[in-house]
Amino acid sequence: MDTQDKKPEIMEELEKVGVTDLKTIVQTNWKGTLYRFILKIRLTINLPKEKKGAHMSRLVEAISETIEEESSVVYDSLEELERQILDKLAGRHPYSRGEIEMETELVVRKQTPVSGRQTMETYDVTLRVSKDNGSYSKKLTAEAFGSTVCPHAMEHSNGRPHMQRAKAELSVDTEYSNPVELEGMLSIIENGFSSETYTLLKTEDEKHLVNKMHSNPRFVEDVCRKILSEAKQKYKNSKIKVKVISYESIHPHNVIAEAKAET
Amino acid sequence: MDTQDKKPEIMEELEKVGVTDLKTIVQTNWKGTLYRFILKIRLTINLPKEKKGAHMSRLVEAISETIEEESSVVYDSLEELERQILDKLAGRHPYSRGEIEMETELVVRKQTPVSGRQTMETYDVTLRVSKDNGSYSKKLTAEAFGSTVCPHAMEHSNGRPHMQRAKAELSVDTEYSNPVELEGMLSIIENGFSSETYTLLKTEDEKHLVNKMHSNPRFVEDVCRKILSEAKQKYKNSKIKVKVISYESIHPHNVIAEAKAET
Amino acid sequence: MDTQDKKPEIMEELEKVGVTDLKTIVQTNWKGTLYRFILKIRLTINLPKEKKGAHMSRLVEAISETIEEESSVVYDSLEELERQILDKLAGRHPYSRGEIEMETELVVRKQTPVSGRQTMETYDVTLRVSKDNGSYSKKLTAEAFGSTVCPHAMEHSNGRPHMQRAKAELSVDTEYSNPVELEGMLSIIENGFSSETYTLLKTEDEKHLVNKMHSNPRFVEDVCRKILSEAKQKYKNSKIKVKVISYESIHPHNVIAEAKAET
Amino acid sequence: MDTQDKKPEIMEELEKVGVTDLKTIVQTNWKGTLYRFILKIRLTINLPKEKKGAHMSRLVEAISETIEEESSVVYDSLEELERQILDKLAGRHPYSRGEIEMETELVVRKQTPVSGRQTMETYDVTLRVSKDNGSYSKKLTAEAFGSTVCPHAMEHSNGRPHMQRAKAELSVDTEYSNPVELEGMLSIIENGFSSETYTLLKTEDEKHLVNKMHSNPRFVEDVCRKILSEAKQKYKNSKIKVKVISYESIHPHNVIAEAKAET
Repeated sequence: MDTQDKKPEIMEELEKVGVTDLKTIVQTNWKGTLYRFILKIRLTINLPKEKKGAHMSRLVEAISETIEEESSVVYDSLEELERQILDKLAGRHPYSRGEIEMETELVVRKQTPVSGRQTMETYDVTLRVSKDNGSYSKKLTAEAFGSTVCPHAMEHSNGRPHMQRAKAELSVDTEYSNPVELEGMLSIIENGFSSETYTLLKTEDEKHLVNKMHSNPRFVEDVCRKILSEAKQKYKNSKIKVKVISYESIHPHNVIAEAKAET
Repeated sequence: MDTQDKKPEIMEELEKVGVTDLKTIVQTNWKGTLYRFILKIRLTINLPKEKKGAHMSRLVEAISETIEEESSVVYDSLEELERQILDKLAGRHPYSRGEIEMETELVVRKQTPVSGRQTMETYDVTLRVSKDNGSYSKKLTAEAFGSTVCPHAMEHSNGRPHMQRAKAELSVDTEYSNPVELEGMLSIIENGFSSETYTLLKTEDEKHLVNKMHSNPRFVEDVCRKILSEAKQKYKNSKIKVKVISYESIHPHNVIAEAKAET
Repeated sequence: MDTQDKKPEIMEELEKVGVTDLKTIVQTNWKGTLYRFILKIRLTINLPKEKKGAHMSRLVEAISETIEEESSVVYDSLEELERQILDKLAGRHPYSRGEIEMETELVVRKQTPVSGRQTMETYDVTLRVSKDNGSYSKKLTAEAFGSTVCPHAMEHSNGRPHMQRAKAELSVDTEYSNPVELEGMLSIIENGFSSETYTLLKTEDEKHLVNKMHSNPRFVEDVCRKILSEAKQKYKNSKIKVKVISYESIHPHNVIAEAKAET
Repeated sequence: MDTQDKKPEIMEELEKVGVTDLKTIVQTNWKGTLYRFILKIRLTINLPKEKKGAHMSRLVEAISETIEEESSVVYDSLEELERQILDKLAGRHPYSRGEIEMETELVVRKQTPVSGRQTMETYDVTLRVSKDNGSYSKKLTAEAFGSTVCPHAMEHSNGRPHMQRAKAELSVDTEYSNPVELEGMLSIIENGFSSETYTLLKTEDEKHLVNKMHSNPRFVEDVCRKILSEAKQKYKNSKIKVKVISYESIHPHNVIAEAKAET
């Protein structure tokens, strides 16, 4: 009998047991284009009282074998790949609740606002699929930088605000079949700021952005509400969370706003 | 009317609004000894639909004025200081739910196991106090390093296991008046590992520790269960959470175990 | 006249001025296979006394335009792409010393030592190309995890050592034309440890690895020397640096060894 | 013979061998006031070809014993404590070059610019002392947040600039006896920005700061030059380095400027 299958000295159920910070590479066929991603994966299962340990190598195998097959098969999304890994694992290691989370970077091609130049923007995203007694759910998280411009300073300093970089995170937790796309989530996030950011900006673009910022003074609270409100309208049957952090240019500390809703 | 008190364009309640990563210094009188701590503070309140923003400077003032007074008063614990800050804030800024969290480092004097040398050990700890419609609760979190020694390798390689550094985090969420001490939590955590760690070890101490590790092979799951089980016995009327991560010496990724209980 | 081209109030030469933490995606044709990389880029130039600022958007354009062309052209290596960016920049912004650094992750397919399974290993690497008054040089840096096994504990505890995860970094700074490959650098690094690590290990592989670790006790100093010595033999006309850190399983702190050589 | 004193298989001199990330607590008597610091220490020595390893526990002992004595003695500065540790180590472990580095946080009491309120500001600082064949040198590093306000956007957008948080680091490397104080270095750094930052700001202070920012547009290059120039005037017989990073509010990447000088 494997050490892992023995009865442990202390019998307590464990909620999540598994591997984390496991890095690998996959390709997916997203809307007809092949994408390659370097992923950081966390895969966990629940462990009942009477089992000493999980067979960790089987968790790693469920990941690596699904990815190997996928080289020929090619899934349509990372979520589909995650579901496939959970299913393959179920055939090798019993569990009642499994969860897989992938952190990666999404690259989106954009145009600069005035000069119309091509620019590539990179966003941190996390995709999680859970399988709970046979039923699947998913949680998508995206984050983006933008700016906040202080409406209070604007009023009290003759239209001269302080402004700064900010970051917002939106997550949507919903059933597996609910169509939610990271690109749409990123649009909602960027639309919430005083202005979005761009990697490339020519002088005319910079001028446009700076004017947009001055016309759009928003507290960190305003940004949080705008993102929450748009996400509530777009994503139904979901648990929505928003976190915004503003890296204040007049303080060494940061200010934050958080909100959540169920639709 | 201040900008913050105006009606916002988008009316959504915000769960948490405030300052974070604010660093300061305090001293407390813990069991008769004065301790000085550098703290990283997060202080948030809920914000109702109809208020555009929080008066962030009042949150900072509630912290700084309480700490200034405290120079003369000196509280008995960081939790007491946190409660005082929440109370002072209530007099300046209305809120129905406020929460303050302090991250700091606790230094504990220990003795090496055989040579009996003095050694100072430093631990990351977090103390949170919440005030919800007038009633207080607290959540204490402590983490410590230790080691895991693989029982499976021990069995399959003639008593030659692989071993590695691990880290465990224990949190206890309970009513404010429930006496919970970080020192006790740290003892439970360190007792859960194959062995605890020391900053200073003479040859005889190292030999003792290595023997202890070999006599105590434990999976990350075993460590998690031992900490959970001891914490459940010691802390009543509490929500307890345990997370253990093992930095595997044979893998580039980590393995984890998480558990929770309500007592 | 652009603000950047004006004479600054304080006239001091600046060694490096530019953009950092800029993320983008590229593909290269490495030995006949297309690879896509997400990169974090730092591109800097020197700035003479009499110029107030660099035209930062031209630095970004030199990157984005080279990458766009590269989609059709496809360079053979990231170093070649870097040189191309420095050359394109020279046509748009004068400088006497330019430097570009790309951080990315390299994925290498390996076989497990006994069961012969496929496993994908991911390594952090950095590639830097400098152009100094027209002449090019490069610096390649690679890092990998492995293990250290304490020879001192081995001797003093009847063959029962403590062991732990360690990490080593090797950099080779040489003229641009000197052929240096990251894959070879990674082999030298992994060969320096008591054992290398694998993402996937079956029971027979784990047993093999644990035996290898016990047969190969090495201090952090031994690892550092072995990597330095092999790199000195392989890379001529180079400045070589090695850093090794061992995440001690018996201590909460780490131990390190560093060495350098010129060949 | 201890394992460490044996002849190693591969004979290479090692530049630095020792402990890092070691945390402890000390108190110093700085200008008549007792300060307690939590420190992160790195202590290394060179290791000759013919010695297999350093006796790491003696390095830890040199730290812990000096600190213990210091509880009664109390040194006047962290640099003096560092020199004492290097001297104590020399009595226990031969070396020709030793180096100790302490990272800590310095808390400085300031007044807000208009309302005159007390505010506590916390800064990351690093102090290094080296002993090279009996002669001592030191390197002090301090960093502070501030803001940059874009002069280019100011000119091209009718006095409407973009602005953002920035961070600057100044280091002074000089002989041990040269009087250099972190407080003075921090003043030079903060004076370099478009404006310094404060933890606490009342409305009138905020208005003042925002006006100061608008009257003081500075590129990251301007900030770097101002700090360099003032440091060159103040610190003689020193190697001075300045690094400034600006967390652009219109870009997701950062811009940097670096300079160095020898006085």
